[in-house]
Amino acid sequence: MMDSQQLLCKINDYLAALDYPAEPRLLYRPVEYALEAGGKRLRPVFVLMSYGLFAEDYERALPCAAAIEVFHNFTLLHDDIMDNAPLRRGRPTVWNRWGENVAILSGDAMIISSYSLLAQAPAALLPRVMECFNRVAMQVCEGQQYDMDFESRQTVEESEYINMIALKTSVLFEGAIEIGAILGGADRRNINRLREFALEFGLAFQLQDDLLDSYGDSRLGKSVGGDILEGKKTYLMISALNAATPEERTLLGSLHRDESLSADEKIARTLEIFNRYEVKRKTEEEINRRFAKALAALAEVDADPEALAGLKAFVEGLMGRDK
Amino acid sequence: MMDSQQLLCKINDYLAALDYPAEPRLLYRPVEYALEAGGKRLRPVFVLMSYGLFAEDYERALPCAAAIEVFHNFTLLHDDIMDNAPLRRGRPTVWNRWGENVAILSGDAMIISSYSLLAQAPAALLPRVMECFNRVAMQVCEGQQYDMDFESRQTVEESEYINMIALKTSVLFEGAIEIGAILGGADRRNINRLREFALEFGLAFQLQDDLLDSYGDSRLGKSVGGDILEGKKTYLMISALNAATPEERTLLGSLHRDESLSADEKIARTLEIFNRYEVKRKTEEEINRRFAKALAALAEVDADPEALAGLKAFVEGLMGRDK
Repeated sequence: MMDSQQLLCKINDYLAALDYPAEPRLLYRPVEYALEAGGKRLRPVFVLMSYGLFAEDYERALPCAAAIEVFHNFTLLHDDIMDNAPLRRGRPTVWNRWGENVAILSGDAMIISSYSLLAQAPAALLPRVMECFNRVAMQVCEGQQYDMDFESRQTVEESEYINMIALKTSVLFEGAIEIGAILGGADRRNINRLREFALEFGLAFQLQDDLLDSYGDSRLGKSVGGDILEGKKTYLMISALNAATPEERTLLGSLHRDESLSADEKIARTLEIFNRYEVKRKTEEEINRRFAKALAALAEVDADPEALAGLKAFVEGLMGRDK
Repeated sequence: MMDSQQLLCKINDYLAALDYPAEPRLLYRPVEYALEAGGKRLRPVFVLMSYGLFAEDYERALPCAAAIEVFHNFTLLHDDIMDNAPLRRGRPTVWNRWGENVAILSGDAMIISSYSLLAQAPAALLPRVMECFNRVAMQVCEGQQYDMDFESRQTVEESEYINMIALKTSVLFEGAIEIGAILGGADRRNINRLREFALEFGLAFQLQDDLLDSYGDSRLGKSVGGDILEGKKTYLMISALNAATPEERTLLGSLHRDESLSADEKIARTLEIFNRYEVKRKTEEEINRRFAKALAALAEVDADPEALAGLKAFVEGLMGRDK
């Protein structure tokens, strides 16, 4: 059994070894640029850790793990066009560096590239792997559309927001875990428990991301307030909007656009309202509830105990519960 | 055996019966809008006619035929963004009607939808079908990138142009024919001959499209000169540019932008130079050479004679050789 660090190295080596053609340069260089950006490679690590619950020879699962990562990076590439985001992991985004047309087309090439990797799954398992991948890939598109829909809406229900992040974020974790389990030969019962684990973990992970952006993390020293300054409808903002008075609601919707305020003032005044309605506590409770459900589902999985413990330790680390 | 008209009906019925979810509306309505636009459905008809050379039960090939058509319509949807084209088949393009972000994302959904249809191929054949589809899908992206590259170039070699239209247009015909043959159970030898047939037909078909746009077709009463007014580097323009004097070359590159000229004058002066270098005759010779190669390859295919005759008659009709 390999730990998450060893698996991460395997994935990075595999991705670095994918050699795309030299020409046309403007189609393939942006693809390599996007994949070089790195990141935590969480999704392919999930594929391999899920596979490792039931099998040993990780090589068999590497192409599908890479397929999930290439697809994830395609979604970032196209989302950056739609969100007009200038930077990604500290570097210019593809549309920003090469233009929108190049970004659209190289993103398309990345989808196709992800299916080329997926097609390397063992032939007997390919139909099931394809069914899973196609399902979650379409759900990710649905999540992105809902996300864009919400921007132009006055109010969003918490349940609508949870559904959106489930589609946009969690289902790809679910797909990664499911494909790893299919390749490892897991039975239906284990697959269903692992899917629930991944879905609930994904929600807890995204909600924690929302929380850290507004309240920070001393350990990570993460910059605080980015979502607030962008006026993003995060779980915290939605909870506050749904609890606030009409006056406060108007304020929450306009503070980030108020030219007369400094960034710090915008953040402080927004957090003031968040605190008034205990948004932090509420969010922490939701995170704990989701993460506990995830661990409970994982505990029900019948697989190699050592590998199960490794996966549990990995997600606890991601949630900052490792000390 | 069914004729091309019956097969077209089968395909249109199948496409019309694909029911995409109701929500998110802005993700799925544009997909349906793009597929409703119709068109000749040549590629799926090719899948079924190729299948019909070796088998009878067309139902087995319908999902893959639809996959090729959905993918083709995805390429049109994203190309229309890149080309900033306001109209497609007489209706507003998706980006023009719903905006660029909706067009990018719904195009992405169409790629995934095409793979969902492809995944319905018989399990035993799925790996080969996927390999073929992935290969041609990536080549189509390469063709689109070369097409965009050429716009900003002074000169393009004829061989470069032929390679570009082979990638952008012919390979999808090749993929359609190959997938139909794989599903029908054709052997390697027949598949290779059919691929050559489709590739050469695709080139003849695209070159004829270039020719008709500049010289028209009395039978079709097609509007003449669209490519010339857009300053597009068609086969005719490239042949003229490569034969012309430096002065004529400058003229050919600037005529379509000359505010002082009427559309008719722009077209007339361009055709004057085309005629000076016998571009029409040269193009017709290239079309005839390609189409003859296509028919020669088709004649070498060992399959049901009646079905072969039907496919031959179909492509002769498409090339206007049916009288």
